[in-house]
Amino acid sequence: MPIQPAAKTRVDQIISARWIIPVRPRTVLHHHALAIAQGRIVAIGPRDEILDNYSAAESTTLDQHVLMPGFVNAHTHAAMTLMRGLADDLPLLTWLNEHIWPVEGRFVSPEFVRTGTELAIAEMLRGGTTTFNDMYFFPEAAALSAQDMGMRAHIGHVIMDFPTAYAANADACLQAAADLLPRLRKLPLIRQSLAPHAPYTVADAGLRGTRELAEAEQLPIHMHVHETAHEVEEALALHGQRPLARLAALGLLNPRFLAVHMTQLDADDLRICRDSGLHIAHCPESNLKLGSGIAPIVRIRQQGIGLAIGTDGAASNNDLDMLGEMRTAALLAKGISNDPTAFPAWEALEAATLDGAEAIGWGDLTGSLEIGKAADCIAISLDHPATFPVYDPVSQVVYCAGRDQVTHVWVEGKIRICQGLAMDWDASVLFSRAQNWVKRIRERDQNP
Amino acid sequence: MPIQPAAKTRVDQIISARWIIPVRPRTVLHHHALAIAQGRIVAIGPRDEILDNYSAAESTTLDQHVLMPGFVNAHTHAAMTLMRGLADDLPLLTWLNEHIWPVEGRFVSPEFVRTGTELAIAEMLRGGTTTFNDMYFFPEAAALSAQDMGMRAHIGHVIMDFPTAYAANADACLQAAADLLPRLRKLPLIRQSLAPHAPYTVADAGLRGTRELAEAEQLPIHMHVHETAHEVEEALALHGQRPLARLAALGLLNPRFLAVHMTQLDADDLRICRDSGLHIAHCPESNLKLGSGIAPIVRIRQQGIGLAIGTDGAASNNDLDMLGEMRTAALLAKGISNDPTAFPAWEALEAATLDGAEAIGWGDLTGSLEIGKAADCIAISLDHPATFPVYDPVSQVVYCAGRDQVTHVWVEGKIRICQGLAMDWDASVLFSRAQNWVKRIRERDQNP
Repeated sequence: MPIQPAAKTRVDQIISARWIIPVRPRTVLHHHALAIAQGRIVAIGPRDEILDNYSAAESTTLDQHVLMPGFVNAHTHAAMTLMRGLADDLPLLTWLNEHIWPVEGRFVSPEFVRTGTELAIAEMLRGGTTTFNDMYFFPEAAALSAQDMGMRAHIGHVIMDFPTAYAANADACLQAAADLLPRLRKLPLIRQSLAPHAPYTVADAGLRGTRELAEAEQLPIHMHVHETAHEVEEALALHGQRPLARLAALGLLNPRFLAVHMTQLDADDLRICRDSGLHIAHCPESNLKLGSGIAPIVRIRQQGIGLAIGTDGAASNNDLDMLGEMRTAALLAKGISNDPTAFPAWEALEAATLDGAEAIGWGDLTGSLEIGKAADCIAISLDHPATFPVYDPVSQVVYCAGRDQVTHVWVEGKIRICQGLAMDWDASVLFSRAQNWVKRIRERDQNP
Repeated sequence: MPIQPAAKTRVDQIISARWIIPVRPRTVLHHHALAIAQGRIVAIGPRDEILDNYSAAESTTLDQHVLMPGFVNAHTHAAMTLMRGLADDLPLLTWLNEHIWPVEGRFVSPEFVRTGTELAIAEMLRGGTTTFNDMYFFPEAAALSAQDMGMRAHIGHVIMDFPTAYAANADACLQAAADLLPRLRKLPLIRQSLAPHAPYTVADAGLRGTRELAEAEQLPIHMHVHETAHEVEEALALHGQRPLARLAALGLLNPRFLAVHMTQLDADDLRICRDSGLHIAHCPESNLKLGSGIAPIVRIRQQGIGLAIGTDGAASNNDLDMLGEMRTAALLAKGISNDPTAFPAWEALEAATLDGAEAIGWGDLTGSLEIGKAADCIAISLDHPATFPVYDPVSQVVYCAGRDQVTHVWVEGKIRICQGLAMDWDASVLFSRAQNWVKRIRERDQNP
C-alpha cells in the first residue's frame, strides 16, 4: 500500500527566488521560497521544502533575482513631484522664497496633492519602495492616493504657524489632524503621524499641542530638525537653545519621534538622541543638493541611534529612488569618514528597509521578510551587465543595482509591479492629469 | 508652371528629437534634427528645415527624448568588471593586498582583459557612454574589444616598476607600448596614451622614459595622482616633494596630461595644475567608496583647470554608469561646499561630455553635437515617472534620469543600442564567457 502523502497546506501564493535576503536575520538564502496567505508571510524555507508542504493557486519563480523586503522611504513630500526640476542650482532662500513657496501658495489643494502623490507613488513603487513616510498639506488626499494605488503610507499631518492654503495656523492644523484621524484609520494601508514642520516654523504653543495630541492618540511625530547650520544658529540667537534641546525640554522626544535631516549634531545633541530613543531619517541627496550639510551617520550609529533613509521631496533631490539613496548614503559615509569600512552594505540595506520601518513604528508589519509580517517584497533581477558577476548579492543590491532592475513589487501580497510594468495604473494617464498643473505652475513661475 | 523644388542633399540618416542638447553651445534646441553622413554630423537645425533640405535612407524620430552627445568616461579600468563586488567594505590595503592584486597576479591575461572589457563595454554603451579612457594590462585586448563592439576608446599603455603578468618592469612596459603603438593606430575607433600607474609605482627613470616616448609619439599621459593623503605624505617622506611637484620637475605636465583623482590639492598644487594646462579626471564614487578623499572641484574649476568625470573600475565603484557619476559629482560639489549653486547642471553635463573629450585630446571629434564632429550621440527618454514633469531637460538629465532611460546610442553614426537593446551582442553570451573566469576567481579568493 503506497504511503499517503501528507496533505499540503493551501496558501495564496508561493514566490521562489535564486537569492532571498530577508534582512532579519542578516543572511542570504539560496534557492528558497516564501509562502503567502492573506497578505502575510506564512513560511520561508528551501524551495523544495516549501513546494512539498504548500500548494498555491499562484506561483512565481525568479531564477536570476534577489527577493527582499520593499524599501521604506522614511521621509518625503510626495506631492512635490509636480515641482521636480522647477528651480535647481539656486541659493536656498531664492529656491524657497521665489519658487517653491509661491507655487505652493498659489496651487496647493487636495487635487494638487492627489495628482502629485500619484506621480510619486508610480515612481516609488516602480523603484521598489513599498512604504513611504509623508509630510505635506492636505494629508487626506495623499492617504487616498496611496490606499487606491495599493502602497503603504505613513501620513503626517503637517503643523505650522504660518497661514497656508491648508490651514491658518498651528491650532488649525492640529484641529484638522484631530478631525481627520478617525477617517484615515479606516484605510488599511495607512498609518498616521503628526508632522510639525520644523522647530523654526512652529512656536512652543504649537509644539505643546502636538505633544498632547500625540500622547492622547498614540501617534508618532515626524519633523525636520537641524537641517542646516543656519537653523541652529538662528535658534541659539532666538531661544538661547539648540533646536533639539528645545524639543527635549518641551517633552517631544521619545522612541516615536523621527528627526529628519540632522546634519548638525554636537556631542550634547547625540546624547539627547541616544537618551530619548528617537530615530533619525537621513536624506543624503537632498542635503547635498541644497548644500545643507551631511549627517554624521557613522557617529549616529556608534551611539546606537536608529537610522533610516529617506529621499526627501522631488523638488530637492530630484528623484524618489531608494536604491540610489541607499547607495549615496553608503558611499558618502565612507567618503566623509575616510574609512572604506564605514556603513557597509548590510547596514545600508537595513537602514533602507527594516530600520526605516522601525523608525516610523511599523517594524511589526514590514521592513523584513519574516513569518507573520506583511508580504511587502520586491524582486531585483541581477541579470544585467551592471550587476554581473554576483560574488555577493548584498553588494550588488547596494552598490550597483539600478531601479530599473526592480522587476516585481508586492504590497501585502498583492502584485503592483510585474516584469517592470505597473499593474494598476497607466503612467500616461497620470502624466496627462498632471500636465494641467504643470502648465499653470510654469506660467506662474515664469511670470510671478 | 510649378516651382521646381530644390534638390535635397542625400545623407545617411536623420535623427529628430523633442529636445537636442548639443552641449556646445550651451542651449536646448526644441524639435530639431541632426543630419548624419559617413558617421559625421553634417547639419543641425529645426526639424522641418532639415527635412526640407536633406533626404536619408534611415530616419529616427524621438518625440519624448533628449538627444545629446554620448558620455565620455574619463577614467576606468574596464576589465575589472570581472572583480566587481569581489571585496567591498574593506580597508584599502586589505582590498588591494588580499583580493585585487592576488587575483590580478593569478589571472590577468589577454583573454581575461578581453572578456572583462566586453562586459564593461556592454554596460557602458547601454548606459549612454560612447567613449572610455582606459588604463589596464594587455591594452591590445581592450582595444580590440572596443573596436569590435563599436565603442570609441582611448587606450592607455600601463607603465609600472613592479613585475606583473604583463611586463617585468617599467622599461618592459615602455617597450611593449612602443611595439604596440603602430598596430593599434590601425584601429579607427582607438586612440592611445601612456599610462604610468601612479607616482608611487613608477620611479624617476620610468617617468623620464614615459616623457620621452610621449614626446616622440605625441601621446597623452594618463596617470593616477594624489588619490589619497597617504600617497602625498609618503612621497614627502621619500622624495621631500609632493607627487605633483615631482611630476612637474620631471617635465611630465602639460595640456596632454590627465591627472586622475586629485583629492589632495593645496594652493601650490592648484597653481601647478593651472600653469601646466593639465586636465583632471574626477572619480567621486570610487573616491568616496574607498574613503580616499574628495577632489575640490569647485576650486579646480575656479582656477580654470579642465575637469572631466570618470567612473574608475567596477571593483571600486561598483558600476560604470556615467549618468550616476555625473549626478554624484554635482550633488557632492554642492554638499561639501555648502553651496547649492556650486557645479550646476550645465557644468556637470559639460564635464561628463565635452570636457571629458578635451581632457583626453579627443575634443576635435566627440563630446558635443557640432557640424563636422562624429555622430557619437545618445537619446534619453524623459517619458518616465522619475523625469516628469520637464521644466528643464538639462536638470532632468543631470538630476533624475537613470541609465535605463537611455534608449538609443550611436557611435560614429552607427547604432549600437536601439530601444534599449544591444544591436551587436547578446549579454547572456558575454556572461557565460565571463562565468568561467568568475568561478576561478571565486575559488582563488576564498582559498588563497
